Amino acid sequence: MALLVEKTSTGREYKVKDMSQADFGRLEIELAEVEMPGLMACRAEFGPSQPLKGACITGSLHMNIQTAVLIETLTALGASVRWCSCNIFSTQDHAAAAIARDSASVFAWKGETLQEYWWCTERALDWGPGGGPDLIVDDGGDATLLIHEGVKAEEEYEKTGKIPDPASTDNAEFQIVLGIIKDGLKVDPKKYHRMKERLVGVSEETTTGVKRLYQMQANGTLLFPAINVNDSVTKRKFDNLYGCRQSLPDGLMRATDVMIAGKVAVVCGYGDVGKGCAAALKQAGARVIVTEIDPICALQALMEGIPVLTLEDVVSEADIFVTTTGNKDIIMVHHMRKMKNNAIVCNIGHFDNEIDMLGLETYPGIKRITIKPQTDRWVFPETQTGVIVLAEGRLMNLGCATGHPSFVMSCSFTNQVIRTA
Amino acid sequence: MALLVEKTSTGREYKVKDMSQADFGRLEIELAEVEMPGLMACRAEFGPSQPLKGACITGSLHMNIQTAVLIETLTALGASVRWCSCNIFSTQDHAAAAIARDSASVFAWKGETLQEYWWCTERALDWGPGGGPDLIVDDGGDATLLIHEGVKAEEEYEKTGKIPDPASTDNAEFQIVLGIIKDGLKVDPKKYHRMKERLVGVSEETTTGVKRLYQMQANGTLLFPAINVNDSVTKRKFDNLYGCRQSLPDGLMRATDVMIAGKVAVVCGYGDVGKGCAAALKQAGARVIVTEIDPICALQALMEGIPVLTLEDVVSEADIFVTTTGNKDIIMVHHMRKMKNNAIVCNIGHFDNEIDMLGLETYPGIKRITIKPQTDRWVFPETQTGVIVLAEGRLMNLGCATGHPSFVMSCSFTNQVIRTA
Amino acid sequence: MALLVEKTSTGREYKVKDMSQADFGRLEIELAEVEMPGLMACRAEFGPSQPLKGACITGSLHMNIQTAVLIETLTALGASVRWCSCNIFSTQDHAAAAIARDSASVFAWKGETLQEYWWCTERALDWGPGGGPDLIVDDGGDATLLIHEGVKAEEEYEKTGKIPDPASTDNAEFQIVLGIIKDGLKVDPKKYHRMKERLVGVSEETTTGVKRLYQMQANGTLLFPAINVNDSVTKRKFDNLYGCRQSLPDGLMRATDVMIAGKVAVVCGYGDVGKGCAAALKQAGARVIVTEIDPICALQALMEGIPVLTLEDVVSEADIFVTTTGNKDIIMVHHMRKMKNNAIVCNIGHFDNEIDMLGLETYPGIKRITIKPQTDRWVFPETQTGVIVLAEGRLMNLGCATGHPSFVMSCSFTNQVIRTA
Amino acid sequence: MALLVEKTSTGREYKVKDMSQADFGRLEIELAEVEMPGLMACRAEFGPSQPLKGACITGSLHMNIQTAVLIETLTALGASVRWCSCNIFSTQDHAAAAIARDSASVFAWKGETLQEYWWCTERALDWGPGGGPDLIVDDGGDATLLIHEGVKAEEEYEKTGKIPDPASTDNAEFQIVLGIIKDGLKVDPKKYHRMKERLVGVSEETTTGVKRLYQMQANGTLLFPAINVNDSVTKRKFDNLYGCRQSLPDGLMRATDVMIAGKVAVVCGYGDVGKGCAAALKQAGARVIVTEIDPICALQALMEGIPVLTLEDVVSEADIFVTTTGNKDIIMVHHMRKMKNNAIVCNIGHFDNEIDMLGLETYPGIKRITIKPQTDRWVFPETQTGVIVLAEGRLMNLGCATGHPSFVMSCSFTNQVIRTA
Repeated sequence: MALLVEKTSTGREYKVKDMSQADFGRLEIELAEVEMPGLMACRAEFGPSQPLKGACITGSLHMNIQTAVLIETLTALGASVRWCSCNIFSTQDHAAAAIARDSASVFAWKGETLQEYWWCTERALDWGPGGGPDLIVDDGGDATLLIHEGVKAEEEYEKTGKIPDPASTDNAEFQIVLGIIKDGLKVDPKKYHRMKERLVGVSEETTTGVKRLYQMQANGTLLFPAINVNDSVTKRKFDNLYGCRQSLPDGLMRATDVMIAGKVAVVCGYGDVGKGCAAALKQAGARVIVTEIDPICALQALMEGIPVLTLEDVVSEADIFVTTTGNKDIIMVHHMRKMKNNAIVCNIGHFDNEIDMLGLETYPGIKRITIKPQTDRWVFPETQTGVIVLAEGRLMNLGCATGHPSFVMSCSFTNQVIRTA
Repeated sequence: MALLVEKTSTGREYKVKDMSQADFGRLEIELAEVEMPGLMACRAEFGPSQPLKGACITGSLHMNIQTAVLIETLTALGASVRWCSCNIFSTQDHAAAAIARDSASVFAWKGETLQEYWWCTERALDWGPGGGPDLIVDDGGDATLLIHEGVKAEEEYEKTGKIPDPASTDNAEFQIVLGIIKDGLKVDPKKYHRMKERLVGVSEETTTGVKRLYQMQANGTLLFPAINVNDSVTKRKFDNLYGCRQSLPDGLMRATDVMIAGKVAVVCGYGDVGKGCAAALKQAGARVIVTEIDPICALQALMEGIPVLTLEDVVSEADIFVTTTGNKDIIMVHHMRKMKNNAIVCNIGHFDNEIDMLGLETYPGIKRITIKPQTDRWVFPETQTGVIVLAEGRLMNLGCATGHPSFVMSCSFTNQVIRTA
Repeated sequence: MALLVEKTSTGREYKVKDMSQADFGRLEIELAEVEMPGLMACRAEFGPSQPLKGACITGSLHMNIQTAVLIETLTALGASVRWCSCNIFSTQDHAAAAIARDSASVFAWKGETLQEYWWCTERALDWGPGGGPDLIVDDGGDATLLIHEGVKAEEEYEKTGKIPDPASTDNAEFQIVLGIIKDGLKVDPKKYHRMKERLVGVSEETTTGVKRLYQMQANGTLLFPAINVNDSVTKRKFDNLYGCRQSLPDGLMRATDVMIAGKVAVVCGYGDVGKGCAAALKQAGARVIVTEIDPICALQALMEGIPVLTLEDVVSEADIFVTTTGNKDIIMVHHMRKMKNNAIVCNIGHFDNEIDMLGLETYPGIKRITIKPQTDRWVFPETQTGVIVLAEGRLMNLGCATGHPSFVMSCSFTNQVIRTA
Repeated sequence: MALLVEKTSTGREYKVKDMSQADFGRLEIELAEVEMPGLMACRAEFGPSQPLKGACITGSLHMNIQTAVLIETLTALGASVRWCSCNIFSTQDHAAAAIARDSASVFAWKGETLQEYWWCTERALDWGPGGGPDLIVDDGGDATLLIHEGVKAEEEYEKTGKIPDPASTDNAEFQIVLGIIKDGLKVDPKKYHRMKERLVGVSEETTTGVKRLYQMQANGTLLFPAINVNDSVTKRKFDNLYGCRQSLPDGLMRATDVMIAGKVAVVCGYGDVGKGCAAALKQAGARVIVTEIDPICALQALMEGIPVLTLEDVVSEADIFVTTTGNKDIIMVHHMRKMKNNAIVCNIGHFDNEIDMLGLETYPGIKRITIKPQTDRWVFPETQTGVIVLAEGRLMNLGCATGHPSFVMSCSFTNQVIRTA
């Protein structure tokens, strides 16, 4: 898509896939409102007093139907909102269209390139000359990252005149981030400084983003206050656990139609997300095996009758592999080579580095067969057997299905609204 | 769609939605083959001896990916095949296209009108002047019904010259059946007699069709031998139970994205299908209630901690209603009027008469809002609350998702192949 | 115990462990009556018409609290009753005492020797000169066996004058049976003939007994009509399944106090009993493995996420072994030698030949340490590791706990009463 | 029993029920050692360095088989130990005998009166003129309470010469505590002061005791350091959850033999203990209802398909009631009056004040029928219906069964040992 900002008849900026889906999006938003009593109660309780009146809020969080209800709760409390997704596959285009038409500036579509993704993030942060945002609703910390990297580059530039060099990193995605900052620097060398100064703070949604923030806090590099929404019990013990318990099988079924009963399924990690995934698979009739390095979590798995093994132990006999760790390099290409034909490999942790996608893509002679979007079969040349990778290694519940169901997101997002308001 | 038979370059007849989806269908058929060891073993074991060589087989059974593997197993054993679906919503268009292009005459698409449905059934039975079929693979008994009604009409016509009168029945669908027979009678008044004479027999897939056959047998009106595939243990205790355990939540999630955990779900009927549905809902975190008139099944529900109540007891407090009975008039419009706003009503029994769709459609002042195909919200005028009806009251797992997963259909269909061969 | 028949003040014969426990037994019988609505409804419905008036009924069925309610239902319908247990460990002495004092002739105590067991069986069949029984309520077929062997011996004696020779068999238990018949023959050479002639029939409770009866029917040796109570759906699909689901963990816990969660448990056989056992263990947090030779049952286990392996595969890594097959020689001494220290071995099938007790007892150098009655640790000399065998290889739920709970026995026994009445 | 301290041949003090059970206790202790790898690893790792050499440890914690392994781990690390139980019904007499004979001073038997209970506690704290203890291992805080009350009384006495007056309180148990202190004061008015001074601290096992300690800390009345063992994840998330998941059904079955499947069971409280209980009952086939005042826990119950209601809503239709709250006055006599005949009422929280035993005992005209020890049926005069109360309202898993299984207690007790050592 050409990266041009569009405007509604009322002058609000947006960039979405297909504005004609706005009516469909509105219908599903109305259904979701019934399922999201927490957010609707916020509107009823806080709406009259308009606690967010005048606040400029930027969100970087999966632009789907549930998030649409969050956004319209923020606007119902008085805020102005700009939004992007925090995952290239997680946008629901009808939700994006409805919000763009009716309520907020949205820059998001399903199937962004990484270049498009960061352009959208930049747009969502761009409140124009009046400045902003006042608050960030972040999920995974990409909006926060962009500001931190921007401020760092501006400081360097001010001191030494040096501009960021994308070629200074091997990481393809970080090259794009540096490119965006570099381009911005030329136009306005104080943009991110102004943002930092105006920002009241960020509320962070997920484990991965929270870890990044604690790291920055420890390093002394955190530039503004941050609220850890993730560790609210109504987030972590609900969204992570019960959300994944539903959306993992949902994603598996939509992507592959595979029968779960009778399969051997490996869940890497038995934290809250892993517990939800393991429960779902077990209940659907799979034989579940867990890999886990934390001894407490490992013992919990055993108490539920789930064996704890290493990936090496089971890599050649399992049918389904799910990463839930929040760490990187969990399933490597050398693992995937040993898997059974048509083994399914997917990730439901936040970032796409749990599965060694780079190793897979660059494996000599490998063949990628796209069954349908977000469902690829990768065939190894030696064996002519393939693994089926979902959502290109990204969050499979958002890439292959529609993410967590509304009710549990209401539990999560109500934290966001209350912390924000 | 214009009801014109098309032909492949090799001269095979077909009528499908979109032949360009054949490649996509082929990819998914190849995935399904790995998941259907029973059928593939039939090909390996019986293929060389070609036990179906020369046999003309008509199938009336959901034209989806799994059925595609069944059809190509029948052709691998030597048969010629013509196929239609047994449900207006159950066809997967890419599966239909792949089979039409590569293997058999297919007349089926997702979203047929009833007129189109019976036209397709007639086409699947029409083997031209050479005659046929030799065998019918039936699911629900519609192909068998058409032949029986055709023979009856032909006999009446021969004796009295009377032709069938569609106006003689109130049943909209049966009017169409009579219309088709009437039109056929003018062209060839012996067509169904010839079919009956050539037919070796029918193998029937499902409970509902089997009940019809036993009734005809009891009445002395059954015209040819029939094999009850449904009651094979590898069908009834697998397909009905484990198939529905997966495809019910699949259909619910694809159609509505609703969170199942925390909901009150009513399963009408606790036979094999009901047991599978109740297990799925319970495991996903719903509070399940069963309605059941059979005392043994009711006691089984209680032994699993599931209360057995009447629909009246719970109609106004439940969130999800599923009919699984195989009987008619289970959920009536007067029930639906009392339901909570956005209660979900769906059917996973064979026919669409478990839910009172006619009562709903003709309710004065009712408003139908189509959220997306096969997901409608019906709003009652008095309360402005609505119920969400899936797949227009037809099989929701096939209408809203892709039906049972491959492995369990392999268990079912292998019976069909072995009985046929 | 000295094998002398005692008499109540009213002249009713009995032999029980301790008559002073009758009050305690009566209290528990009264509790059980509340839990056994089927039997109590029989009393209410059929009591007034006294359908069993004058009938002499012999029962050979675990003499516990639940059976006590059965016996008093039979007497409430007019019958006279004599009773023995069908397992040397299954009697509850307080139940036996209460019934002996109040209602029927009981010959049973917990911990009979085999000699005592068959003496009790003979007593229960001995209705004196007036003759009887009219009906037998059998469980496992031992009462039926005794009559058949008796008749056979009497015929042989009549023809050839030959009396049975216990030394003609290696089977220790059958030697006792022959001994009893031999002794009886001297006193009354027509006793079993008269029984056979008077007998209206036997109703048989369990799978094993039913198999014996079908075998005799096939051989043409069955001497009187038999009713298969076992295959009533309210017996087989309730008692076997739900009964064992509760009484297996009950027996395990009372005998060993072992934590089930985290253990590897092997269930040999996945019929109705095996399904109940596997469900119980899985739910308690064990990792369950099934051994099964029937392909349908094996596939059912897989659909529930339970691996199906051979005993050899898992013998050295499992913690708990349960036999449920109804066949013999399932767990042999060579298996037990390979087990982990303190592995638990038990049987919940009907007879005690599923576990190779003879092999264990005669293993050179083996040491038996009785932890408490029905809980023995057998220590192998080579390794000094031991296995814990419950109830000496007999029904562990009756030997180590109190058998199935009342409600499910009400479902079973109500069949017995209705068939009998 | 006469409250006289006895002595072993080696001069160690004790008071147990029956020393002849020591061999049986030893056998079960040896079995338990295999199941308690955490404690055995402590012996292996810390035994050689004797970190507890010379330490005098008093324990007030259920004197059963698992605790026996704990005690012998403490002595293996060099400690001298005196022990009492923290519940009048929780002692296993064979465990007490084995420890008294072989390892430590034990003052405990199953079925103590409250007077005996506090006498035992006093004995366990009485290290004679040499003084002690150095450490307390407490469960529920009774040993800690006695010292605190003792110190308070001694201070008052020193200042004002006033001695404690048992008549100053209505609480029957506290009258006994005051009586003991009063008697002690006459003999040695500085006993508890010397204890306090020597004490290094207490490690507290359970939620209830921890709450008491935090309260004392907040009040500034806590006299010595305390370690909260309860909130170790390997205690609270294992012992409370998985322990109760096994020992609740164990207690129910041993006490009543009732069938759990098909019953309606109310679990009061859905904390860790309640979660374990609800899981056990649900899995056994009961329909579970939860009462809960904490909104997060209530929502968790709903997410598992468990309805959350008030006790009033369900009091007359449920079959089984379990209190798990750690609070008092949960099930009152006015509730029990409304229950179904033979409803089972039991408590698995720490103290016996969750169930209104006083109200029950003093209900006019009530009749108590003891079925067997720890299983009483209380019959109301108006209705002649009764409720069955387990363990007189005290911990039913310890009163009616043998408490938590060894493995999970190993997880708990290993914390105790490591904190102590």
